[in-house]
Amino acid sequence: MNPAVRRVEYAVRGPIVTRALELERELSQGVPKPFTEVIKANIGDAHAMGQKPITFLRQVSALCLCPELLSEPSIPGDAKERARRLLAACAGQSAGAYSASPGIELVRRDVARFIERRDGVPAKPDDIFLSTGASDAIVTILKLLVSGEGASRTGVMIPIPQYPLYSAAIAELSAVQVNYYLDEEHCWALDVGELRRALAEARRHCAPRVLCIINPGNPTGQVQSRQCIEDVIKFAFEEKLFLMADEVYQDNIYAEGSAFHSFKKVLFELGPPYADVVELASFHSISKGFMGECGFRSGYVEVVNMDPEVRQQLAKLVSVRLCPPVPGQIVLDAVVDPPQPGEPSYERFIAEKQAVLSALAHKARLTQEIFNQAPGIHCNPVQGAMYSFPRIELPPRAVQEAKAQGQAPDMFFCMKLLEETGICVVPGSGFGQREGTYHFRMTILPPTEKLQVLLQKLSQFHAKFTKEYS
Amino acid sequence: MNPAVRRVEYAVRGPIVTRALELERELSQGVPKPFTEVIKANIGDAHAMGQKPITFLRQVSALCLCPELLSEPSIPGDAKERARRLLAACAGQSAGAYSASPGIELVRRDVARFIERRDGVPAKPDDIFLSTGASDAIVTILKLLVSGEGASRTGVMIPIPQYPLYSAAIAELSAVQVNYYLDEEHCWALDVGELRRALAEARRHCAPRVLCIINPGNPTGQVQSRQCIEDVIKFAFEEKLFLMADEVYQDNIYAEGSAFHSFKKVLFELGPPYADVVELASFHSISKGFMGECGFRSGYVEVVNMDPEVRQQLAKLVSVRLCPPVPGQIVLDAVVDPPQPGEPSYERFIAEKQAVLSALAHKARLTQEIFNQAPGIHCNPVQGAMYSFPRIELPPRAVQEAKAQGQAPDMFFCMKLLEETGICVVPGSGFGQREGTYHFRMTILPPTEKLQVLLQKLSQFHAKFTKEYS
Repeated sequence: MNPAVRRVEYAVRGPIVTRALELERELSQGVPKPFTEVIKANIGDAHAMGQKPITFLRQVSALCLCPELLSEPSIPGDAKERARRLLAACAGQSAGAYSASPGIELVRRDVARFIERRDGVPAKPDDIFLSTGASDAIVTILKLLVSGEGASRTGVMIPIPQYPLYSAAIAELSAVQVNYYLDEEHCWALDVGELRRALAEARRHCAPRVLCIINPGNPTGQVQSRQCIEDVIKFAFEEKLFLMADEVYQDNIYAEGSAFHSFKKVLFELGPPYADVVELASFHSISKGFMGECGFRSGYVEVVNMDPEVRQQLAKLVSVRLCPPVPGQIVLDAVVDPPQPGEPSYERFIAEKQAVLSALAHKARLTQEIFNQAPGIHCNPVQGAMYSFPRIELPPRAVQEAKAQGQAPDMFFCMKLLEETGICVVPGSGFGQREGTYHFRMTILPPTEKLQVLLQKLSQFHAKFTKEYS
Repeated sequence: MNPAVRRVEYAVRGPIVTRALELERELSQGVPKPFTEVIKANIGDAHAMGQKPITFLRQVSALCLCPELLSEPSIPGDAKERARRLLAACAGQSAGAYSASPGIELVRRDVARFIERRDGVPAKPDDIFLSTGASDAIVTILKLLVSGEGASRTGVMIPIPQYPLYSAAIAELSAVQVNYYLDEEHCWALDVGELRRALAEARRHCAPRVLCIINPGNPTGQVQSRQCIEDVIKFAFEEKLFLMADEVYQDNIYAEGSAFHSFKKVLFELGPPYADVVELASFHSISKGFMGECGFRSGYVEVVNMDPEVRQQLAKLVSVRLCPPVPGQIVLDAVVDPPQPGEPSYERFIAEKQAVLSALAHKARLTQEIFNQAPGIHCNPVQGAMYSFPRIELPPRAVQEAKAQGQAPDMFFCMKLLEETGICVVPGSGFGQREGTYHFRMTILPPTEKLQVLLQKLSQFHAKFTKEYS
């Protein structure tokens, strides 16, 4: 068996989730539990938490799958027009044909126009590669970039806490994980001084060549300032690092004063020598934002300033898997080319989109407020994304008992929380944290009333747990 | 850049296809060519060649994507009932939620029942992992199994000619490709003596642990006999090899006297000591067969006798990519749980399925007949799958000229064929062939009249080419 596979860990679907599924099964079989429902706040899965799909996206994709429905009078004309345009761009006019390996040409053009509208700078369809969710694109780019043995192995800089796809992919590819710590005392901000420290240390034992940024932050919920992004770009330029910007939460910004700045836009605005030198890959997805279409597995990467020879190798690499799923490409197209004012679907589309985003903003505030009322729980503002990553104080006796059982202390806490309350959150140790601190990640996605109960129950459980182990 | 990526080659979407796309663009811009249309016979993409989707599959999936349509009277009740059942099995009743990483539980159960009906032996849902097309599952299983450095690197035995996904994945994973040659003189049959030769030779420089079989064969179109499969299983047992059986063309059997026997069925029928020892992974897909739903990227692997600890590592590995695309899982379910006699969709479903399969059987015969009338083209019967892999004689002067241009001789031939006729086929060198022999792979998927013209044009071009270089 491949030893690199053995090293892979992925906490978001790790042992705690396995146990949550078991508990659900037991509940459904009538086994008595101290709760009536398992609430899976472990993963950013909006529809699983009851969020309704955006109607327009589903109409367009259903029409493409079943063109007989194009004659249905109940479906609005703009959805039909989009479906006809997309079908005409599919080989044999069928979503069942393979697309070109980097995605349907038309969709890549629409994505490029979407990026141009967002950033006000040019985007080229040839730089855009559609993918099977952002995860697929992230792993593909990492695969392209890593190499070497021993001290020349590629070092990949990732934030701590991180989204564990990164550590898993680095382990699988036998690259070297280089940690830089986000600053919890400053709302999980990225500090370039810390990047410098991490880089210098890593250079002693590997060849750091890639710098990964997650903005808005997962699991931190932090939104980076324009100044911070400028600093990171200058740092990458000076140190000749390839920038990977995970920007899948770009639509999820809640905090007053926070705004999303794409790395590409800031890079272009910085101008030479940065704009035409720094190599950047930016990732986006239909799984998050207001659409939450995780099940479709669709996303894209835009590469900027990539060496043309390397880009050609990238094109070759994606061709081996033939193409990203076409239904997902279709939904992505509807996301980047949404209904316009005056079109029949516009009002409903905007209303559905706003309802999702304003509910999320409300839940972000609620999460922070309730947690910060609880002694021993410290929660930074959820400025964006879909998660809160609170620090929890755990009594020394709990830490000892966890260690005696061979568990990380926050895993011990989360497992007990799950067994007693049915609440499933992921221990901070699965994302990385400073030695001696303990956290958990939870999504803010449950419906408001359920979220409120969850936050209160969790706070109460923490108080009880603290008392029990003090 | 990753040197393993540089080594990857994938002929099915290689330079010849790039040129075909350029020619298509030039044609559409009015550049005069000696042909009016590029015919892409390079890839098994049924819908791109005009095959119509099976209505029932598309109705079920469109309903799942857009449940508002459940009230449409024009859609039959059995499609609605399937959609309701599938939606109930999706988290939040939405195809936009992540499924469990190995796939929706209900779909895995339906796949297990499908396998039981096919083989008459038990199948367990826990042994079934849904995937993003069969390619994804094949690469995942290979990734799980390969390891080592130097002489202990894992050797993976593959047929020559092979489907180049295998060579590409082996290169990417830095494993060792171990070639065994299929017997062109005997209809591309697999000969266990040749397996023995290849294994003995490979053991001198690597550790062969995996044996890949493609049945029905891609690119050969060969269908293995039951006896051959028994022999291969016994060989794998004796030599402690993990069997990977690529059975994605199991519905595509055309030749009189040929039948599909799954490796699992034969393994179970052999009984002990084979049945409970030989480790097997069998792959299937919705991209081929009568459905041809390549764009959905959906398939599965069933693992048999896999070490439970390794299976757990497999479960972990697939969790990192979260889940296979849900729309594809839905179509897969409709394929393995088709309309039954008496249900409203039954007649139409069977008629559409039979129409596709009988047209393919007709085209398989046609291909063989026309090619074998051409001097210098030798074509084995297309017993199954979707391809013909004829051997072509090339005059020595053509071989010299190709080599002078740094091209494989069959690439030289195929490129000239494309430029003069617009016919795009893939050179045999992309699949592997015995030294000094030349082939190409073409699909038999174009509509009958177009296929007939294509076969005649190709034969005529070969005659002209032979004359020109003699």
